[in-house]
Amino acid sequence: MLVRCHRSKLSVWGVLCILVLCWLYIFPVYRLPSDKEIVDEVLRHGQVWEKNRTGIDLFRKLLAECCDPRRMFAVTKQNSPMGKVLWYDGELYHSHTVNNETYSLFVKETPLQLPLKRCSVVGNGGVLKNSGCGKDIDQADFVMRCNLPPLSEAYTEDVGTRTHLVTANPSIIEKRFQNLLWSRKAFVDSMKAYGSSYIYMPAFSMKPGTDPSLRAYYALADASSNLTMLFANPEFLRTVGKFWKGRRVHAKRLSTGLFLVSLALGLCDEVTAYGFWPLSVGLDGQPISHHYYDNVLPFSGFHAMPEEFVQLWQLHKSGTLRMRVGHCTPKEVGG
Amino acid sequence: MLVRCHRSKLSVWGVLCILVLCWLYIFPVYRLPSDKEIVDEVLRHGQVWEKNRTGIDLFRKLLAECCDPRRMFAVTKQNSPMGKVLWYDGELYHSHTVNNETYSLFVKETPLQLPLKRCSVVGNGGVLKNSGCGKDIDQADFVMRCNLPPLSEAYTEDVGTRTHLVTANPSIIEKRFQNLLWSRKAFVDSMKAYGSSYIYMPAFSMKPGTDPSLRAYYALADASSNLTMLFANPEFLRTVGKFWKGRRVHAKRLSTGLFLVSLALGLCDEVTAYGFWPLSVGLDGQPISHHYYDNVLPFSGFHAMPEEFVQLWQLHKSGTLRMRVGHCTPKEVGG
Repeated sequence: MLVRCHRSKLSVWGVLCILVLCWLYIFPVYRLPSDKEIVDEVLRHGQVWEKNRTGIDLFRKLLAECCDPRRMFAVTKQNSPMGKVLWYDGELYHSHTVNNETYSLFVKETPLQLPLKRCSVVGNGGVLKNSGCGKDIDQADFVMRCNLPPLSEAYTEDVGTRTHLVTANPSIIEKRFQNLLWSRKAFVDSMKAYGSSYIYMPAFSMKPGTDPSLRAYYALADASSNLTMLFANPEFLRTVGKFWKGRRVHAKRLSTGLFLVSLALGLCDEVTAYGFWPLSVGLDGQPISHHYYDNVLPFSGFHAMPEEFVQLWQLHKSGTLRMRVGHCTPKEVGG
Repeated sequence: MLVRCHRSKLSVWGVLCILVLCWLYIFPVYRLPSDKEIVDEVLRHGQVWEKNRTGIDLFRKLLAECCDPRRMFAVTKQNSPMGKVLWYDGELYHSHTVNNETYSLFVKETPLQLPLKRCSVVGNGGVLKNSGCGKDIDQADFVMRCNLPPLSEAYTEDVGTRTHLVTANPSIIEKRFQNLLWSRKAFVDSMKAYGSSYIYMPAFSMKPGTDPSLRAYYALADASSNLTMLFANPEFLRTVGKFWKGRRVHAKRLSTGLFLVSLALGLCDEVTAYGFWPLSVGLDGQPISHHYYDNVLPFSGFHAMPEEFVQLWQLHKSGTLRMRVGHCTPKEVGG
């Protein structure tokens, strides 16, 4: 009886230990700076920024080793031949085996002329509103944007007009375009804002996202659109997720923004990031909206925006990428 | 015990009687003429045909009384306002309540300028092959065709090129165009053969046919097609079905062809029907294909083609409509 009791106590302690370890993994013990501390830090840093070639090269080397972005960022005929099993990175135990139909939709190989020179990565933070960063953003050789943001005239001055790559989550196709099951005109028309850029869709991240992504492909192809569909490679998304998990970014899933900055750091000689700002107040202490075009908040607990920002800010301080979080012109408040 | 046995025998007889009555209703006792008898009859009748104005007017009156084709042949905003319950004519206990979305797809009112003058109704029978009827068909003021038939150059001489109304069963959308869930280009392109005609779809006949029909609407609208979608009114399809059931046409469902001839008799001053021939041999006794473009046979037991033909031939003999079943030019073998 005594032995039994002893054993059962031991197993309870074992379970508790595992739970604590899991807890620590999900919610690490290091303390995140408060909003005020982040604002003070950014203001203290001011406009000082110097490119650090060694830092850039080192980071690109790290990304190349973990994730091979140049070859793997998109699904291509080269990295995903017929019969290849693509494991969904956002699901457990689900995969898509490349078949005749899907294979025919893949680009032959990475279509970008690498390395890209100066890249702008545009997050959609409310901090962009009245930033006057449009010209700056457009001056880059390659402009990346997140989640099909609006680019109408009202925003041009703050966010620019040029786009070379824009991500499109399947959830947008579902919510905004009824999964493209009915009329597809609104979708095709709204995509004209992105000129002849690449549409980068995580078609193989979650199983329910595959069909809407394929439909998005067909909608553009049927309309003889100038846009080129690129499906994000789930292997790349998984390895980039792991890369950041090992660097104190703990969330169910990385934000599209951090994915895109990682991609840019892997592909570009010089990266400037705009509109990445996870706080509800600006540098002047005044409240700002979540996005530059609306104030719809994301699901809580899905992404870890402040954690991501801290990482990006460290890269900024080390000269690896430049973060623009204040006005671009005429006055520069922050970085 | 004797009473019980007597009662049970009575109920068995009762059930048997009901079964025999049902059997007679489904397979009536009147004898259908044999293939040879039909051919002989058509040959005997030869080229003699005379229009019978009284017969035409009488039949139109009968159709107007039962089915009101002028007002009811298509679903319109007028006959199907918001909230109206459309009962599927091909299903039991299923209905569609007109809502914001579907209402917006309906034409305002019957879009045809009635009455139509000379109408050609083109069935797709193999008898059309080498018939040289193309010119005759095209000379009508209004040309109706069944089930999106091919109109490529190879067939022009036999079937003509003009179309004013063409039916499209949702099953075609499913089989030939993968329900329009993916690319829609092949559908939109193939519909160009029908110029700026009406596409007449039984969207509310069977529940699984509604979504493909709506998608067909959107595909054409998105492509700014010249075609106009008309949804067949299930009430009209049901009343026409009943009309023919009372006239010895017993089948699970009328063929599209007989529906279309009925519509034409209700809307046109003069009707000529081509390509209606349910036999596997022609007037010369030689085997002919089922369709002018292929030899794919329909599901057996679904339609009652020879019964339908006998009815049409009686209308032909009475001068109510003209059936062309032989060569149109230069030699005329049959009607």
